[in-house]
Amino acid sequence: MVKKILKFGGTSVGTIERIQHVANIIKKEYDAGNQIIAIVSAMAGRTNELIKYSKDIAQDFDKRELDVLLSTGEQVTCALLAGALIKLKLKAKTWLNWQIPILTEGEHSNSRIINMNVSQISKYLDEGIAVIPGFQGISKKGDVTTIGRGGSDATAVAIAKLFNADSCEIYTDVDGVFSTDPNKIPVAKKIEKISYDEMLELSSLGAKVMQPSAVQTAMIYNIPLEVRSTFTDRKGTKIFDQQSIDYNKSVTGVAYSKDDAKITLIGVEDKPGVAANIFDPLNKAQINVDMVIQNISSDQKTTDITFTIKREDLSNTKEILKNNKKIKYQDIAYNDKVAKVSIVGAGMVSTPGVTFKMFKGLADEKINILAISTSEIKLSVIIEQENTLNAVKKLHTIFELD
Amino acid sequence: MVKKILKFGGTSVGTIERIQHVANIIKKEYDAGNQIIAIVSAMAGRTNELIKYSKDIAQDFDKRELDVLLSTGEQVTCALLAGALIKLKLKAKTWLNWQIPILTEGEHSNSRIINMNVSQISKYLDEGIAVIPGFQGISKKGDVTTIGRGGSDATAVAIAKLFNADSCEIYTDVDGVFSTDPNKIPVAKKIEKISYDEMLELSSLGAKVMQPSAVQTAMIYNIPLEVRSTFTDRKGTKIFDQQSIDYNKSVTGVAYSKDDAKITLIGVEDKPGVAANIFDPLNKAQINVDMVIQNISSDQKTTDITFTIKREDLSNTKEILKNNKKIKYQDIAYNDKVAKVSIVGAGMVSTPGVTFKMFKGLADEKINILAISTSEIKLSVIIEQENTLNAVKKLHTIFELD
Repeated sequence: MVKKILKFGGTSVGTIERIQHVANIIKKEYDAGNQIIAIVSAMAGRTNELIKYSKDIAQDFDKRELDVLLSTGEQVTCALLAGALIKLKLKAKTWLNWQIPILTEGEHSNSRIINMNVSQISKYLDEGIAVIPGFQGISKKGDVTTIGRGGSDATAVAIAKLFNADSCEIYTDVDGVFSTDPNKIPVAKKIEKISYDEMLELSSLGAKVMQPSAVQTAMIYNIPLEVRSTFTDRKGTKIFDQQSIDYNKSVTGVAYSKDDAKITLIGVEDKPGVAANIFDPLNKAQINVDMVIQNISSDQKTTDITFTIKREDLSNTKEILKNNKKIKYQDIAYNDKVAKVSIVGAGMVSTPGVTFKMFKGLADEKINILAISTSEIKLSVIIEQENTLNAVKKLHTIFELD
Repeated sequence: MVKKILKFGGTSVGTIERIQHVANIIKKEYDAGNQIIAIVSAMAGRTNELIKYSKDIAQDFDKRELDVLLSTGEQVTCALLAGALIKLKLKAKTWLNWQIPILTEGEHSNSRIINMNVSQISKYLDEGIAVIPGFQGISKKGDVTTIGRGGSDATAVAIAKLFNADSCEIYTDVDGVFSTDPNKIPVAKKIEKISYDEMLELSSLGAKVMQPSAVQTAMIYNIPLEVRSTFTDRKGTKIFDQQSIDYNKSVTGVAYSKDDAKITLIGVEDKPGVAANIFDPLNKAQINVDMVIQNISSDQKTTDITFTIKREDLSNTKEILKNNKKIKYQDIAYNDKVAKVSIVGAGMVSTPGVTFKMFKGLADEKINILAISTSEIKLSVIIEQENTLNAVKKLHTIFELD
């Protein structure tokens, strides 16, 4: 018997009609002879509504109580979905975070699932459908915990792993993973198969289809994923390990994000240890530095150091740099109107000339590259934000994704 | 140190501003040196919203899942109130039904609290304020249960009993218990002190200030209650045992309800066992028969039997009577436009002439009495519904309650 984990996101369960539609999807899978565990998010908008309540009380609302508050969203969806399944004459029931229990560790609002009791539910799957809230668990102390925004994906993958499931299907409001953002670039194409690595790069780089840490867990435990639409019958995107995929293209997709900022320290003393002195305090403040470029200055005694961070960390970063007595520099410049555009493809490493092709394409469009970073399956550039769509379109075309 | 149970109803926590106001009430009590357990209802309207969701899926929505659904309402309020208390620099935390746990028995949506673990919370009260969701618990099997609409009162009283609290204050949207409905009869007066019995009669008879079963529990365990307003500083109504109250009036209040119906079976055979044959099947169908009057018919071989039921049970009752082969009667008449008006007062039993005064008052207003029932502290009559307010006003005046 095939054991399937089906996860439904917030828009998929956003109204009563949609919850009933989801119940019908599950019924079809169940009637086909599969064992089913359904994982659900909160109804679209509810988590934001609850967060607004908390912010109206305190911007720094107590984190323990925030988890108690937010976890109710998925509990509501669970009960409604189980009720809808029972209405369809199926046997179904909710299993809440504390009933299973789903054990987590780590801070409130940012916990990780470490274990859960599978025996009771495994037994129950012989007779009915288990409905489980995503995004939450309990700590060893018995407090309610949550695992970060979008954490229902992580719940689905963790359950797929712990129950040794045959597949894990992520139902969402798009048809699958696209070669770039289909809302902005109409020629974007749905990708049929993609490797974990590529998916990871794409999801970290702004393709918001799946939560990166969930993809990472699936990669580590080799859990086959499928991202597909709740609202159509079309096939989605399958996500496997690289070996199972035949590559006929060097580049699988083009991703972009507009939430970066670039900082340049001008005239930094050019001596060993200076980079560490700059980045250590940022690291301690949990500011994530993405790309780093070091140029040699004209006087050869000082250097310029450029790096990128999330735009939301900009003012904090400037403050830390200003108060950093360990480093000397002449000036500081920043640009918060930049974008990051990336090409992703597991075939890149074996295809010569990809880098040249990308740079030439951008040059043809007269787009200036402000910074570059690469990995085995990814090549990212920072450009002025106003050039974003032009760059994405050009790259999508020259790498034959249209 | 005084241990206080403070319970806040749905309108008292209906908005974020009101939750913050409730936090300030609690702070005042806490700063005065009291130990505090706060019990909260769902935000006004939320329970109805959740019920509507469930009905949109199925009129007979699964009861286990309905309890999972509805219990989220109080959990949200708990988290928000705890957060608001912490914002006021108080130490506070939520204790959910399964964390305490609050053990219940009985059916889903109609369970009773039978026990809870008090030791952990008792210890916690030395350092902070405990916030607990009303209306819910868990079963021995570990399922979520609820204890019926208005069940937060029952939770408050059960907690007052189990924690051996010094007082239990029910915060609501009215100033206390009134001599009759202040919205309809402007001369209605707030009652300062009332006995459990009187309160029980009043709350069962349509004064919706407190849930009757909660008053009953308070009476059995002699837990002093106070009903008071969240929105004013005025003193509320204290509810004690009868001995502690000095009565200077025979009648404490006038209650009325408009949800009854009257049925008369005309020409029933007048022989032993006939009443049992009529009421047994109604009892089995869980139809509550309130007043029963048996007249002798003119022919002395048959009799007329009149009784009252809740109006919602009318069609079901007629059906059962029609299919009842054990009894013979000539005709059936019913009136679903009746009201029940009652005077309540622990002093009634020791004051002669109360009954006469009531009947004369109604006769003066040319109001016909259709049925009568009495208890030691209550005298109820069924009248035509259109006469309700006239009757209530007249009784309120002649028993010197204005």
